[in-house]
Amino acid sequence: MNRKEFRDLATPAEAREAIDSLALEAGIERVPLAEARGRVLVARLDAELDVPGFDRASLDGYALRARDTFGADEADPARLAVVGEVHAGEEPDITLEEGQAVEISTGAVMPDGADAMVPVERTDRVDGPSTERASGETPTDMESDGDEVLVRTAVAPGDNVMFAGADVAAGERALGPGTQITPRDIGLLSALGIDEVPVRAKPRVGIVSTGDELVRPGADLASERGEIYDVNSYTIAAGVEDAGGEAVLYPHAGDEQDEMERILREAADECDLVLSSGSTSASAVDVIYRVIEEQGELLLHGVSVKPGKPMLIGRLDDSAYVGLPGYPVSAMMVFRTFVAPAIREAAGLPEPASATVAGRLARQERYEEGRHRLMPVGLVTDGDGETLVYPVDKGSGATTSLADADGVVEVGPETDYLEQGEPVTATLFSPDVRPPTLFAVGEDDPTVSRLLDGLENPRYLSVGTRPGLRRLREGVPDVAVVAGPLEADVETVELGRWEREWGLVVRTGNPDEIEGLADLVDRDRRFVNRTTDSGLRSSLDAAIADLADDRGTTRRELTDAIDGYDLGLRAHESPARKVIAGDADAGLGLRETADRLDLGFVPLGEQPVRVLANPDRTAKDGVRELEAALADV
Amino acid sequence: MNRKEFRDLATPAEAREAIDSLALEAGIERVPLAEARGRVLVARLDAELDVPGFDRASLDGYALRARDTFGADEADPARLAVVGEVHAGEEPDITLEEGQAVEISTGAVMPDGADAMVPVERTDRVDGPSTERASGETPTDMESDGDEVLVRTAVAPGDNVMFAGADVAAGERALGPGTQITPRDIGLLSALGIDEVPVRAKPRVGIVSTGDELVRPGADLASERGEIYDVNSYTIAAGVEDAGGEAVLYPHAGDEQDEMERILREAADECDLVLSSGSTSASAVDVIYRVIEEQGELLLHGVSVKPGKPMLIGRLDDSAYVGLPGYPVSAMMVFRTFVAPAIREAAGLPEPASATVAGRLARQERYEEGRHRLMPVGLVTDGDGETLVYPVDKGSGATTSLADADGVVEVGPETDYLEQGEPVTATLFSPDVRPPTLFAVGEDDPTVSRLLDGLENPRYLSVGTRPGLRRLREGVPDVAVVAGPLEADVETVELGRWEREWGLVVRTGNPDEIEGLADLVDRDRRFVNRTTDSGLRSSLDAAIADLADDRGTTRRELTDAIDGYDLGLRAHESPARKVIAGDADAGLGLRETADRLDLGFVPLGEQPVRVLANPDRTAKDGVRELEAALADV
Repeated sequence: MNRKEFRDLATPAEAREAIDSLALEAGIERVPLAEARGRVLVARLDAELDVPGFDRASLDGYALRARDTFGADEADPARLAVVGEVHAGEEPDITLEEGQAVEISTGAVMPDGADAMVPVERTDRVDGPSTERASGETPTDMESDGDEVLVRTAVAPGDNVMFAGADVAAGERALGPGTQITPRDIGLLSALGIDEVPVRAKPRVGIVSTGDELVRPGADLASERGEIYDVNSYTIAAGVEDAGGEAVLYPHAGDEQDEMERILREAADECDLVLSSGSTSASAVDVIYRVIEEQGELLLHGVSVKPGKPMLIGRLDDSAYVGLPGYPVSAMMVFRTFVAPAIREAAGLPEPASATVAGRLARQERYEEGRHRLMPVGLVTDGDGETLVYPVDKGSGATTSLADADGVVEVGPETDYLEQGEPVTATLFSPDVRPPTLFAVGEDDPTVSRLLDGLENPRYLSVGTRPGLRRLREGVPDVAVVAGPLEADVETVELGRWEREWGLVVRTGNPDEIEGLADLVDRDRRFVNRTTDSGLRSSLDAAIADLADDRGTTRRELTDAIDGYDLGLRAHESPARKVIAGDADAGLGLRETADRLDLGFVPLGEQPVRVLANPDRTAKDGVRELEAALADV
Repeated sequence: MNRKEFRDLATPAEAREAIDSLALEAGIERVPLAEARGRVLVARLDAELDVPGFDRASLDGYALRARDTFGADEADPARLAVVGEVHAGEEPDITLEEGQAVEISTGAVMPDGADAMVPVERTDRVDGPSTERASGETPTDMESDGDEVLVRTAVAPGDNVMFAGADVAAGERALGPGTQITPRDIGLLSALGIDEVPVRAKPRVGIVSTGDELVRPGADLASERGEIYDVNSYTIAAGVEDAGGEAVLYPHAGDEQDEMERILREAADECDLVLSSGSTSASAVDVIYRVIEEQGELLLHGVSVKPGKPMLIGRLDDSAYVGLPGYPVSAMMVFRTFVAPAIREAAGLPEPASATVAGRLARQERYEEGRHRLMPVGLVTDGDGETLVYPVDKGSGATTSLADADGVVEVGPETDYLEQGEPVTATLFSPDVRPPTLFAVGEDDPTVSRLLDGLENPRYLSVGTRPGLRRLREGVPDVAVVAGPLEADVETVELGRWEREWGLVVRTGNPDEIEGLADLVDRDRRFVNRTTDSGLRSSLDAAIADLADDRGTTRRELTDAIDGYDLGLRAHESPARKVIAGDADAGLGLRETADRLDLGFVPLGEQPVRVLANPDRTAKDGVRELEAALADV
């Protein structure tokens, strides 16, 4: 076996240094204002014009000479001749003389000769003495088109006028280099008439996935050949875009050296950074290793972090290159720890602020190896409003670990033990991560799924009834969902319960005429079971024990006779799906499942499903929301 | 004057209720996985397949029957026959019998008959007895292709195997409705082979700008007609996109009723929400008011908030309609307070988390009217690390107010007075707003601009020397930049100083042969001054006083003789720009400006520019960064 060994592991600091030494910057581009939001300015922008560009009326009213109003008040208004009007968007064609006023709209240009304005509310429009005589009446309402105006207040020069350049003066510094453009900055740029801005180009990041066993989502999967969906490509692409880069997915490369080299070099030619990602197979890693070593430059291979050891950093042609580990959790942890900061830096974006949460470790953790550890964690608020931090780990091959996690706790290589209750700081995956309002664990059940759909932001781990109870006892989740006869050995508060009918899910119309457990024992039908963790399995085992009693034989004798008894599947629908696929004649399941999938059903009994809360958590909003939802079940 | 009066103002709560009664939801769309980041799932997604889809080797090594290793250890390894190999992406063609092993790669399918695997590190590949005899030697290294393997450890069934469905089981709940898709969720969806997801469509928000005086950025502006750039359209569009909507800009509508109605109805036909925005002119508001009232339904007009009173809420055809105030600051404040939350709600996005900052008000504030107040504020950290919150207000017509602000403090209508030092909570404009590391005020100066370009995240308000000193005395900014003879009447720490040469900026080559101040007084040249706030103006006035002394006349006599002495512009380059434009023969300015703009220069003196810090703030990172940068000036 020709395996690449990573014997001299670099420290995380050395890995950061190696990545920093690569130039990921993509240069400058000019973007239209409509696309400038969130982009980063590369140069200072100074105002090229005054804003406003003219002396501007701030209100609707009358433009006038301030000194003509001196001494005016309600009792003794100043009387001015109205000699014209000017609206927004019009050029005034009048120069004011002493004793004159011009009707003016908000935003209009102050006419020459005027140095202040009065709002219309402090004026009355009236007919002048000659008109008054002619019509024989004295109009007083402000709708009047009289040729004079009574001004009932005194104003100072400049009152209610925004002078040219008062907002921004030509030549003034408007926005500095490095500004990440907000909608408010777009307001300022608009006011300056700027419709295109020079910004940092987004670093182009090519993603090359390798490995013969990988299939792109959406395509057909041959599980019997060990094919799996390519998790890393789209995930890393989304991470690249989160970090301010532009992700480019390249066609899947397989394990063949020539093809892989061709695609890697194409990506290096077109991108600022190439990430290879995907395969966990040693041969694919070997090929990439060879290509980078022979055709480029390898700066570093192997980093002392867990997860994430097999990481390559180097150059290929004019591009930077980072090889990520194959396992999705490892790939994502290495990406966000080492690569994302470098992309953000190149994009000119600051590190996300205030994305840490202080809490206490929910259970003790031991570390075997002296590697820097990136520990994915979930967060849950306890009854006192404090944050509990619990490690999320389904093994490095798992893909759901990170979807069930909120952030990361880093643990240094010198630490081999963390006590339960130890204060830790979790870095959230992003500043807008919201830890769940409810953390529940337990039985996989369709009613539970529907309940969760109606809650605000729940997290549910369908670990089964038995592990659910164990976790509730350990004090981490708020709630456990427990099905079947198992009793809780811990104090709990029952939030709700219902009964579910269970039995054998069989082919539509039950063509095998399976009538009960005895048919599985005696007629050699192919059966699919659930795992021992599930409440359904507990009820099945109880029913088998009863049948053994009836027949005067042992339980073991019966289970040995059931073909497939030992094959336990984790999810409540899985056995039914095996029946549909023709891989089994009967599966342990629920009537609800059989009905929904249009399958036959042989009832074996009813079992309770109970929703049990940690007594300390019953006042939590999420728990109360769940309790309210349960009232309708 | 035919003005629409808003006499019965609605409360903010009524305005929210009215907006909530409008349906902004845009329905469902299906997007490819590569575009799913940040979108919001509309339905629960259950796993349609097991992940992994087969029993999977977790390491490189040997698949075998666990019971064949029972009792094996370093001293007494189990010896098994190697009967084949299986790599990732291959279908195993072997069924293991007792005493047999198969070489297997990480990620490969476990062959039938095998129930565990041992990592290669715990094995030695050797030749079997027959081979050994034939070759006469005993290869022991792991590169050997011998036909037997020594297993130096015992394993239990299931060891180092990830069983089918162990990660996600078919039928299991994967992601709930309302999930905003993260890169980690994309990992889970990829693993499930899902390449398209049903998400909430982004609400389409049409933006119709009105007002004859508005010009789109990028086009030419006729300031003499009172034209200004349309600030609201692009700003509101960026706000819409920040809130998860899709902004659609419609052609500018002017003030003409038929055209405005045509565009409003086109937008209503194509969008979920129409926002009109732009004009501050009463006539444009009147026309829109009429269109909505006659052709649609007006739910509410006028809201008791400041800024923001003139707001319309209603329906037009099948679309929701909100009319925003014309002034940019008012428009943006009303948008973010009332409209953005409704767009987020329709987009399925949660309210941004943890976007508030607690601080103390930097100076007292009085409120005249009994309206709910949305007060734009800036934030600055004081010497003790506490946050000071200061109101940012250049008047509602200003566009830069918001670019210089970090968030909003809301003040209820019953409050007419806030004491200095009063605890307030500011809501940041967005969770990623970073208050500046340095808050400086004072003289507008090209050296200062360059200095700021090199700092991390500075805020500079070029208010002039005199107001800069006043603000420093009031204790809000960290630093004031002071030019000219003015002495500080407050204790400060001088961080740095330099000299700048000032004088008259004149046309290139000085064709008017202006030699000094006397030419302005005696030769009737058109001059452009700076505002009294500026240090340049102080030096000019001192020089004029000297000239008056020399001539035995009064300062006033001289300044009256200078054409344009009273016209003061705010920015250091503005007078020079007037000279370039032909509007003046000489402007007060700096040699640096004249050189940069290729203009003539008549030196009148040198003046010091001093950077003075609040003594309590000298330990702040931003102040120290500035001090370090000053060392290089």
